[in-house]
Amino acid sequence: MPTKFVSEKNLKFLVYEVFAVESLTLYEYYKEHNRKIFDMVLNAASKLAGNLLYPIFEEMDRNQPELIEGHVKVHPAVKTILREFGNGGWIASRASFEKDGEQLPHLIADVCDFIFQAANYSAATYAGLTAGASHLIESFADPQLYDTYVPKMRAGKWQGTMALTEPEAGSSLTDITTQAEPVNRDYYLIKGQKIFISAGDHNCAENIIHLMLAKIKGGPAGAKGISLFVVPKKRMDENGKLIDNDVVTSGIYHKLGYRGCPIAQLSLGDKNDCRGWLVGEPHAGLKYMFQMMNEARIGVGLGATAMVTAAYYAALEYTKTRCQGRKILQKDPAQPQIPIIEHADVKRMLLFQRAVAEGSLSLILQCSKYVDLVKVLPDEKKEKYHLLLELLTPIAKSYPSEMGIQAISQGLQCLGGSGYCDDYALEQYYRDCRIHPIHEGTTAIHGMDLLGRKVVMQKGKAVMLYANELQKTIAAANKFPELEKQADQLAKSLADLQKVTQHLLGIAQTKGPEYFLADATLYLEFFGIIAIAWQWLLQGISAQKALDGNKKTADRTFYLGKLFTLKYFYGYELPKTLGLASRLMENDGLTVEMTTELF
Amino acid sequence: MPTKFVSEKNLKFLVYEVFAVESLTLYEYYKEHNRKIFDMVLNAASKLAGNLLYPIFEEMDRNQPELIEGHVKVHPAVKTILREFGNGGWIASRASFEKDGEQLPHLIADVCDFIFQAANYSAATYAGLTAGASHLIESFADPQLYDTYVPKMRAGKWQGTMALTEPEAGSSLTDITTQAEPVNRDYYLIKGQKIFISAGDHNCAENIIHLMLAKIKGGPAGAKGISLFVVPKKRMDENGKLIDNDVVTSGIYHKLGYRGCPIAQLSLGDKNDCRGWLVGEPHAGLKYMFQMMNEARIGVGLGATAMVTAAYYAALEYTKTRCQGRKILQKDPAQPQIPIIEHADVKRMLLFQRAVAEGSLSLILQCSKYVDLVKVLPDEKKEKYHLLLELLTPIAKSYPSEMGIQAISQGLQCLGGSGYCDDYALEQYYRDCRIHPIHEGTTAIHGMDLLGRKVVMQKGKAVMLYANELQKTIAAANKFPELEKQADQLAKSLADLQKVTQHLLGIAQTKGPEYFLADATLYLEFFGIIAIAWQWLLQGISAQKALDGNKKTADRTFYLGKLFTLKYFYGYELPKTLGLASRLMENDGLTVEMTTELF
Repeated sequence: MPTKFVSEKNLKFLVYEVFAVESLTLYEYYKEHNRKIFDMVLNAASKLAGNLLYPIFEEMDRNQPELIEGHVKVHPAVKTILREFGNGGWIASRASFEKDGEQLPHLIADVCDFIFQAANYSAATYAGLTAGASHLIESFADPQLYDTYVPKMRAGKWQGTMALTEPEAGSSLTDITTQAEPVNRDYYLIKGQKIFISAGDHNCAENIIHLMLAKIKGGPAGAKGISLFVVPKKRMDENGKLIDNDVVTSGIYHKLGYRGCPIAQLSLGDKNDCRGWLVGEPHAGLKYMFQMMNEARIGVGLGATAMVTAAYYAALEYTKTRCQGRKILQKDPAQPQIPIIEHADVKRMLLFQRAVAEGSLSLILQCSKYVDLVKVLPDEKKEKYHLLLELLTPIAKSYPSEMGIQAISQGLQCLGGSGYCDDYALEQYYRDCRIHPIHEGTTAIHGMDLLGRKVVMQKGKAVMLYANELQKTIAAANKFPELEKQADQLAKSLADLQKVTQHLLGIAQTKGPEYFLADATLYLEFFGIIAIAWQWLLQGISAQKALDGNKKTADRTFYLGKLFTLKYFYGYELPKTLGLASRLMENDGLTVEMTTELF
Repeated sequence: MPTKFVSEKNLKFLVYEVFAVESLTLYEYYKEHNRKIFDMVLNAASKLAGNLLYPIFEEMDRNQPELIEGHVKVHPAVKTILREFGNGGWIASRASFEKDGEQLPHLIADVCDFIFQAANYSAATYAGLTAGASHLIESFADPQLYDTYVPKMRAGKWQGTMALTEPEAGSSLTDITTQAEPVNRDYYLIKGQKIFISAGDHNCAENIIHLMLAKIKGGPAGAKGISLFVVPKKRMDENGKLIDNDVVTSGIYHKLGYRGCPIAQLSLGDKNDCRGWLVGEPHAGLKYMFQMMNEARIGVGLGATAMVTAAYYAALEYTKTRCQGRKILQKDPAQPQIPIIEHADVKRMLLFQRAVAEGSLSLILQCSKYVDLVKVLPDEKKEKYHLLLELLTPIAKSYPSEMGIQAISQGLQCLGGSGYCDDYALEQYYRDCRIHPIHEGTTAIHGMDLLGRKVVMQKGKAVMLYANELQKTIAAANKFPELEKQADQLAKSLADLQKVTQHLLGIAQTKGPEYFLADATLYLEFFGIIAIAWQWLLQGISAQKALDGNKKTADRTFYLGKLFTLKYFYGYELPKTLGLASRLMENDGLTVEMTTELF
């Protein structure tokens, strides 16, 4: 196993220098915290990741979950992990003190999750899902449901899930058919099928708590009739004893990767005895679930970023030690071979991985900070950050997911034939990372979300606010001669973004929504590259500031590396927007007009 | 399993309409052939692929080769397959009648290989490697070696391999250390280690014949001291009995994909009793091996193309039957869901796959035709095609390999969550295809080959000839109003190619080879996209010609589909050259100047 899977130096750079987490402690809500506490938390997370999660990264892949007589058996360490996460307060890290949480800024809690996911994505998922599900109950359910479920979930004893997808309703949630029939004031009888449920069943938790979408019998058709329920695998009987709740695991999937976590198929109410408890109001389920989905979407982006990061360090370590070939001008075969990291093309591949990893992380932590600001600011000031967060969520999910595949593929390529073999970790990262553009909404869904909803909401207010943020960064960068070139490039890209967006809005007017949204996935990619360029410039400003001060050599090396990676992004990645813009400025509706029989 | 893995209609379109294979039968060498024979051959290949190879595509993946007590056990069907390929003349399809071959044009033989590889890449490899190895012996070895090995290899009884790579010599072949010590006039004693040898050992052939690079003791250092040997697993003793030749399989690799074919690690001469027979002259091994490598490189491109094709049909079938969501303007949830192929973004993903698959195949068959022309034309006329072939070989290898990964990834994406699970073939294609940018020279090696050797050879003559070919195609396309736009785009891209190439040659002059070659991989990508655009325009001309004639509806559908895919390529893929050109016109040497410690 490679020795390093994250850079603590980079994490601290982002948290303290770029995003100034300490400024959050000036607000009432976070005033109990300080840098010392944050450092302790980050160190504890690293320790937990290094001791408990990373050592079984391969093992969990090689020993996949099994379905034995209706029960899912997972790696036995999952039990320890869930308990440790519970005892350490990691599942409730974002919950308030009042709710027995750690009340940590998201900026810090998200970095901790990043460390866990980089160490072992599958292993980190169990606690991550439980945190999301418990937060959903906390936010919308009545106190009795809270008391029944949340403490046990946050203690790492009960597993939480999101149970949305059905055989005929994946991307189209509107079409779910799982039914909830009211029985009395207390509960509903649930009947239906759910598929692709991560951690949907396993033997390392005493109970599995599904946050499940279903339709109340007689309710409105479509999305308007979707309600949210808590459906436990085991419910309590009158004596407080856990009994089966008629939730049957009918199958688990054999997957390309992400094998440490079971994905289950559930059958609910085969014996008409599956009880579900309504969360909040009837027919408001989709709205509630979106809270968890939005968190989960950024969480997927974070997970993808974490994998790219770990894979990058694995590739980096290999390229520093593997010797092959000589400098181009060195023709003497008697001279020793050199480490492949000295070849320009290998450096290019490493810079690509690093640029994707650190650029994505920066964007996600930018979102984390917005979440924190929404939490602490008064209503009149928080709208801005709320809108920015809404706008950037599809990017934060999709850019790391899509580019993560390419980055990890380049990492694998750095190892040549060895990258294709399971003696090295790269092939596992390559398999694992392919899930990200699929779960929590496919990339296409996020493209439509960005262009069809976020860009047009409130007459384009979010995009306007976003442009202001970029302008501010450009202005700040222009104060440093070393960053002027990149500041100009970003200004040009921002103008392109506005031009393309206007053009597409014009198509919406003249040709209608199908033509408008036909290339939404490309728009997402286009928008995403520019967003990451913005984040690189932000990092560049902090790095240049640090270099302009008096820093010791080791730190200078770090900041210089940052600036090289920034230049890489502007030299190699940002120009990809040229081709995308060229396509997006077309309006031939090619993919609308292509018909099935022509394939 | 999906029902379709290639389109016979498309194959015939390319072979007869675009590349006019029948014109080759006007030459003496191919005069015995005619369309009827070609049709029979293609049909026989399809039958063999459908009956023998395709049904065990998954099975060979799930039951990987095992190394048991020094012996490699593979899927038992490999024996039948090798024999059938031998008996059917498929291993000798390109050999002359004189050498008991079928004397088929490469254009036809390559299409047959394509069909086999699309059905089951791993299974097709055994015969493919044997064909290459036997051709190498035929070309350069003395008649005695030919008589000893080739008939058995071409009968499918003995397996052929290429044994180049060593633990310390992968991309840097210069550094091989396997030694050959002359013992008498007849043979050499071989000692060394070889790794990553495809089909390097298995129990379904009676013998394994390695075409192996080694250095003769006392010979020149580096690449100039490399010789080529035939090193059999078993050699014949004085009585013509096969005895062990001290070739030990010390390991096999567990790979991401391509699992039906064992990749072996070999130890040679542990008991000082491994005999090798020199092929041709001493120290000329690399030159000889390049014949096989060039064939193998195009073969890898063909294999990658075949996988993309099969994966495309698998994705296509799914998208036609899987229903999810509704048209954007259809908001009524009571209306039935529609097949996902009706969504614009799904069509975009399918068009991408098809554009890569059919564009790549066209380029490779263009190369096949050049091989045929080199074979049949008099010396003074063949140089042109030889140079074009040299120039296009790195593209024919790399474009399908690199874009194949992306295309298959989009195929997987079409299936959503199901694409990630092994209930469908996509995840296997996704794993299998990742080998292509690695074996037969990594993409970086091909970038340096293209820019550092092929572009500059004979003062740029090959590029000039290539530009002429594109000009001819542009002129021909300009006769069709429907193709004018694309003809203009190609003309513009060609101008960009020339501009970028000149710029890079300028860097070579001013800043030296390291800066010149730093972005060779990007140049390869840039060059490749334009080459595929050229091939799409060629196909467009044939399709438009056909449409302008009187064709029946079914055929019209095919040709219209071709034109849509052409438009897709020019609308979505060719613009990617804009970003690449922008980068390639830089000369900051970023990746040269980045240093190890800054990572």
